[in-house]
Amino acid sequence: MSLIVQKFGGTSVGSVERIEQVAEKVAKFRRQGHDVVVVVSAMSGETNRLIELAHQVQERPVPREMDVLISTGEQVTTALLSMALDKRGVKARSYTGGQVRILTDDAHTKARIREIDDQRLHASLAEGYVLVVAGFQGVDEHGNITTLGRGGSDTTAVALAAALKADECQIYTDVDGVYTTDPRVVDGARRLDRITFEEMLEMASMGSKVLQIRAVEFAGKYQVPLRVLHSFQDGPGTLITLEDTQQMETPTIAGIAFNRDEAKLTVEGVPDMPGIAYHILGPIGDANIEVDVIVQNISHDKTTDFTFTVGRNDLPRAREVLQQVAQEINAREVTADSRIAKVSVVGVGMRSHAGVASQMFQALAEVGINIQMITTSEIKISVIIEEKFLELAVRALHSSFGLDREPMDESAA
Amino acid sequence: MSLIVQKFGGTSVGSVERIEQVAEKVAKFRRQGHDVVVVVSAMSGETNRLIELAHQVQERPVPREMDVLISTGEQVTTALLSMALDKRGVKARSYTGGQVRILTDDAHTKARIREIDDQRLHASLAEGYVLVVAGFQGVDEHGNITTLGRGGSDTTAVALAAALKADECQIYTDVDGVYTTDPRVVDGARRLDRITFEEMLEMASMGSKVLQIRAVEFAGKYQVPLRVLHSFQDGPGTLITLEDTQQMETPTIAGIAFNRDEAKLTVEGVPDMPGIAYHILGPIGDANIEVDVIVQNISHDKTTDFTFTVGRNDLPRAREVLQQVAQEINAREVTADSRIAKVSVVGVGMRSHAGVASQMFQALAEVGINIQMITTSEIKISVIIEEKFLELAVRALHSSFGLDREPMDESAA
Repeated sequence: MSLIVQKFGGTSVGSVERIEQVAEKVAKFRRQGHDVVVVVSAMSGETNRLIELAHQVQERPVPREMDVLISTGEQVTTALLSMALDKRGVKARSYTGGQVRILTDDAHTKARIREIDDQRLHASLAEGYVLVVAGFQGVDEHGNITTLGRGGSDTTAVALAAALKADECQIYTDVDGVYTTDPRVVDGARRLDRITFEEMLEMASMGSKVLQIRAVEFAGKYQVPLRVLHSFQDGPGTLITLEDTQQMETPTIAGIAFNRDEAKLTVEGVPDMPGIAYHILGPIGDANIEVDVIVQNISHDKTTDFTFTVGRNDLPRAREVLQQVAQEINAREVTADSRIAKVSVVGVGMRSHAGVASQMFQALAEVGINIQMITTSEIKISVIIEEKFLELAVRALHSSFGLDREPMDESAA
Repeated sequence: MSLIVQKFGGTSVGSVERIEQVAEKVAKFRRQGHDVVVVVSAMSGETNRLIELAHQVQERPVPREMDVLISTGEQVTTALLSMALDKRGVKARSYTGGQVRILTDDAHTKARIREIDDQRLHASLAEGYVLVVAGFQGVDEHGNITTLGRGGSDTTAVALAAALKADECQIYTDVDGVYTTDPRVVDGARRLDRITFEEMLEMASMGSKVLQIRAVEFAGKYQVPLRVLHSFQDGPGTLITLEDTQQMETPTIAGIAFNRDEAKLTVEGVPDMPGIAYHILGPIGDANIEVDVIVQNISHDKTTDFTFTVGRNDLPRAREVLQQVAQEINAREVTADSRIAKVSVVGVGMRSHAGVASQMFQALAEVGINIQMITTSEIKISVIIEEKFLELAVRALHSSFGLDREPMDESAA
C-alpha cells in the first residue's frame, strides 16, 4: 500500500460527467488499497467567469479580493468530487487551501508556498478518507486567502506530495505522457517512459505545455517522483525522476522541443563599450517584456550587432522601446523579424557525449536549413531558424538522434 | 460615530449593477463617519445553481460537502463588493465565516452559531476598513465549513451586531419597512416606525416574509436594535425594539397578519379519553408535518371533534396519516378543508387593554364573517375563516383598530 497524490486539471473536471469519471479513477486506486490525496482545479471556464465578474466591477481588481473570488472555483470542485466519491462508497473529505493548511507568503495572485501542515491530512488519511484538496490556493500567516497563479494546482499537488512524503505524484492531463517531440509534427514521436527533471524543465520551458515549470522545479527540489498521465485513458504515462543512473544505455537526447511564439530583434551598429547589454535590455525589462535567447557577436570596427528574442506578442512594444534606446546609444538601426522559430535538442546525456552540437548542425545542414542564432546550455542546444523550416528541422533532428527507435534497455525490459 | 451592521440579501446583490448600488449606499454611511460591517448573501440564483450541480452528482449530497459547495456563493459576493467599495476609495476587506471566525455547531446545512471571535473584526475596524462578511456560513470546532440554513444571512448579521455591540443592525430588503398589514390587501396599510420584537415575531410567523424568525429571536435575546429598510430607496424603515415604554400612547394593535397557506383537518367523533391529542398528533409529527392552530372542543356523548391546521402542501399526506389514525382510535371520520385562511391581530398593547378580542369578533360579525376556529396568545388573537372572506376581514379589522391613522405621539413628534 502506498500514498499517491493525484492532480486533475480544469478540463478533467470540466463537467459533472467528467467529475464522475475522475471519481471512478480515484475509486479504483482506493480499492487497490492505496491512500489517495486528490488535488483539483476549478471546472474549466469557471476561473475565467469569475475574473470576468471582477473586471466588470473594477478595472484592476484588488489582488486580495481577487484571490477570495477565484479560490471559490476549486472549492466547488472539491465538494462535487467528494460527493461523487461518496456515491461510490468511497469515504472522502474536501479541504480548502486554508483548511489544509497550505501556508504561503502574502503575494496575492502569485503566492509561493512556505509550509504545509500535514498533521490534519495524516489524521484524516488514517481514518480512511480520500482527501480532496483545492489546488491553486493557500492562506498567508494572517489567514488571508492567497492563490498561486495560473497552473498553481500542479504546484499544490507536488507540495502536498513532498509534505506527505508520497510515493508518487500523478499529474493527469490531456496527453498520455511526455513525447520525444510534438506528435503532430513528427509521426514517429514516441512517448518517453522516463525523463529527468532537468530535461523536463528544458522541454517544458520550450513550449511542451504538459506541466508547470514551477511544479517540476519543486518536484526536483524535494525529490518527488512525478508521473504525467492521461485523465481518461489508461497507460503508464511518463515518470519524471532524478537523473537516472540505473539505465544501462542512457539515450543521448531525450527530445526535440520547439517554439514558434518568438520574434527576433536586432540592434545593428551598436558602439561596443562596457554596459551596452544593460543599456539595451534594461528598458526592455522595465517594460515587463521577457527576453529569451540573447546573442552578441564579436565587434567589427568598434561596433557590434546585438540580437535577442521576445514573445511574439511583445514585438511591437519591444520595438518601440528599442527605437528610443537606439537613438540614445547611437546605434545604426533596429530590425525585427517575427517569422522565426526556435528548435532545441534536450538531454542530460549530452553532458557525457561529445559531438551532439555538431551532429545537430550537420542534420540541419543536410536538409539545407540556415541557422540564425545559437545558444547552448549544459543539457540543451537551441537554434533560431526561419519559421517555414520548423517542421523540416524537427523531423530531421528526431530522426538523426534516433528518437523514433525504442532505447535498448527498455526493449529488453 | 456609531457602529452599524448592514445586511443585503441575494436580490440586493443579484448583479454587478446592484452590487455597485449597494457599494454606493455603504460608502455613504462610511463617509458619514460610521464604522460599517456589511453582511451579504450569494447573488440571487447562485445558491440554486450550486444545489442543482450537487444534485446532478448525488441524489442526497453529503451535508458536509454541500456546505463546502454552497458557501462559495457568499464568498464571491464579499469579494465583488469589496472591490466595488475599493473603487469608490473606501478601504474594505472581505471575510468568510471561517475567517471571522463564526463558530457553529456541526449540524451541517442547518448549523447554529455558538460564538463569534470579535478580535480580528475590531482590529480591522480600527484600521479603518469596512468589513464585508459572508453571511449564512461558519465553521465548526474542527474547522469544517458549515451553513446556517436558508435565510441564515439575517442571523449572521444579528449575531455579528451582538458580538460587536453594534449600535444598529440594518436589514435591507425589497420592502421599505414593516406594515400594519399587506398593502396589496388594504390601501390604507401604513409603515410602522417601530414594532417590538414580540410583535415582529408574531407578524413574521404569520407570513410577513420580511425577516427570518430566527434572526428576530436572536436580536431580541441579545437586545440588538434591528431596522428593516429598502435596499434601493431611501427612508427610515421600521425599527424593531424591546418593548417600548417611551411612547405616550401605545397603540393597542401593531398590525393585522394573515396566511392563506394553511388547510384544516378535523377528526370527528373522537372518543374523549386521556392521551387522544397525542394519539392524533404524534403520527403527524413523525411524518414531519408542522401543525399550527389546534382546537379541541368540549365533548358531547363522550366523543369530541379534534381540529387542527397544517401547511396546505402537507394536506394530502396529513389526511393519509389521519385515516389510519382514525381507524386505530375508533373515530367517526376525517374531514378536510383547504379553502380557509387565518387572520390575526397582533400587538403588545392588548396585554393592558381589555376588549381586543370582543372588538375583533364584533368587527368580523358586522361584515357577516363566520369564525371557524379561534386561538389566542398573550399578544395575538387568530381566527380561521373561509378563504373567500380574507380580504374583507383584513380590511374590516385594519379599519376597526384605527391602523390607517397615524398614532398620536408620532404625529405630534
